[in-house]
Amino acid sequence: MFVITAEEKGPDMPTLSTGEYTLVYNAFSFVFAAMFATFIFLVLSRAGVAPKYRNAVTMSALVVAIAGYHYFRIFESWQAAFVLTPGANGAAASYTASGSPFNDAYRYIDWLLTVPLLTAELIAVMAITGAKKTSLTIRLAGAAALMVALGYPGEIASDIGTRTIWGVISTIPFLYIVYELFVGLGPAIQQEKGNVKGILSNVRWLMLATWGFYPIVYSIPLLTGGAKLSATAVIAVQVGYCIADVLAKCGYGVIIYNIARLKSEGEPVTAAGTYAPASGD
Amino acid sequence: MFVITAEEKGPDMPTLSTGEYTLVYNAFSFVFAAMFATFIFLVLSRAGVAPKYRNAVTMSALVVAIAGYHYFRIFESWQAAFVLTPGANGAAASYTASGSPFNDAYRYIDWLLTVPLLTAELIAVMAITGAKKTSLTIRLAGAAALMVALGYPGEIASDIGTRTIWGVISTIPFLYIVYELFVGLGPAIQQEKGNVKGILSNVRWLMLATWGFYPIVYSIPLLTGGAKLSATAVIAVQVGYCIADVLAKCGYGVIIYNIARLKSEGEPVTAAGTYAPASGD
Repeated sequence: MFVITAEEKGPDMPTLSTGEYTLVYNAFSFVFAAMFATFIFLVLSRAGVAPKYRNAVTMSALVVAIAGYHYFRIFESWQAAFVLTPGANGAAASYTASGSPFNDAYRYIDWLLTVPLLTAELIAVMAITGAKKTSLTIRLAGAAALMVALGYPGEIASDIGTRTIWGVISTIPFLYIVYELFVGLGPAIQQEKGNVKGILSNVRWLMLATWGFYPIVYSIPLLTGGAKLSATAVIAVQVGYCIADVLAKCGYGVIIYNIARLKSEGEPVTAAGTYAPASGD
Repeated sequence: MFVITAEEKGPDMPTLSTGEYTLVYNAFSFVFAAMFATFIFLVLSRAGVAPKYRNAVTMSALVVAIAGYHYFRIFESWQAAFVLTPGANGAAASYTASGSPFNDAYRYIDWLLTVPLLTAELIAVMAITGAKKTSLTIRLAGAAALMVALGYPGEIASDIGTRTIWGVISTIPFLYIVYELFVGLGPAIQQEKGNVKGILSNVRWLMLATWGFYPIVYSIPLLTGGAKLSATAVIAVQVGYCIADVLAKCGYGVIIYNIARLKSEGEPVTAAGTYAPASGD
């Protein structure tokens, strides 16, 4: 699900104006700050959720911690990939490729860890129990990991044909996840009460909308002929991933927390004023 | 709401005396220390507040964590933007522009995350509940984000006309926030008891006074003709932002915590001496 491999990008990074370079730089910094702020929020707020929903909040916290780490790495790699070059004859300075490759394979490593967790936290916050919960978690998390892993050979391939083939194969587990979300999880969502039912139903659309962004970006080289990306394409891809990641990880994590909070309100409280310990914590 | 873009600043940073450079350097270091100290205080003190007010303290903690991160970055960018240059013929050494841009777009990213949180924590600590709370939070946080986002195009514009237009447009959501704070929140503040009523009333003035500082700084280039800033102007802007940020984030966060503490005193305590879990945490 990626556009540009480290190998392709290294020598081929386009020359960017200082404004273009800074836009991407600032977008990475923004996402890093959003990830760690969400992490602090989830860690601090976790104890206020009934124990059986805490696993969902813990997984949300892991997702943003992992993504925050990778954004820090991506940020550093972006800095290393460019050199500020003074313009000749009084022209504006620009950022040119330093020769050091821009490694956004970090994103694949991030996804391999976080995308299965995103599916698992959705199931953890629902009213599904026992063997059915385990089975669903394994199937959805497994399909998510498979989807990411199958996209990678296409990502590092230098020819369009190989990229297309792996892209198509990777779409199969994606479609399976969509099927499970909208058909498989339907009955379990109908069993939820009040607000929770509506929020869970909407959260599937958030997943679909944000996840759907990745295959679009993956396809850009297929449309542009796979050669060196223009400055505009590089910026669009990076800023687009940033927006998708904030929605799919921070936004989604906070929504999962809110579902857990709402569901905790109906849970019994002990004489000590705390939630009774239960499975899941 | 910013004065100088990376592009403008990079090559155009004025030459500073070592005293001038160090003053700003130390101001950044001071704010970083104030932010992380406030963060530690809020995290440690959070459990002493009744659960329904903990979200307000959590958000205060997030604000100073996010701001602390950005001040660290601003600090590093400031160091990179200057080079210590020995004076000729025995003159005093000075700090001259290194060519590396001073990126205080970090401030905009910081505000985009923290300013909506500042409005949300005020509502979280008040006696507003249910749909009204959600609606107010969305309106105020949305207006705050809009205010910051609309200021940015003016900030990065190189001509005075564009800067003025976006500055004026950005003022509209600012005025809306002021209206909501002083008119919309009026009845809810009147419902509060004792000290809390007075503190909440005053906290609005703290917001207005500290936030009002930013448009003044934003306007400096309009008054000075928009060209390269003098050393004095650069120092005034940076030190001014530092003071405003400490008041608007650390000071405000501690006041919000105190309101939460005062309100917690009236909350029921369980047999074990802890607060019962409740909505909001």
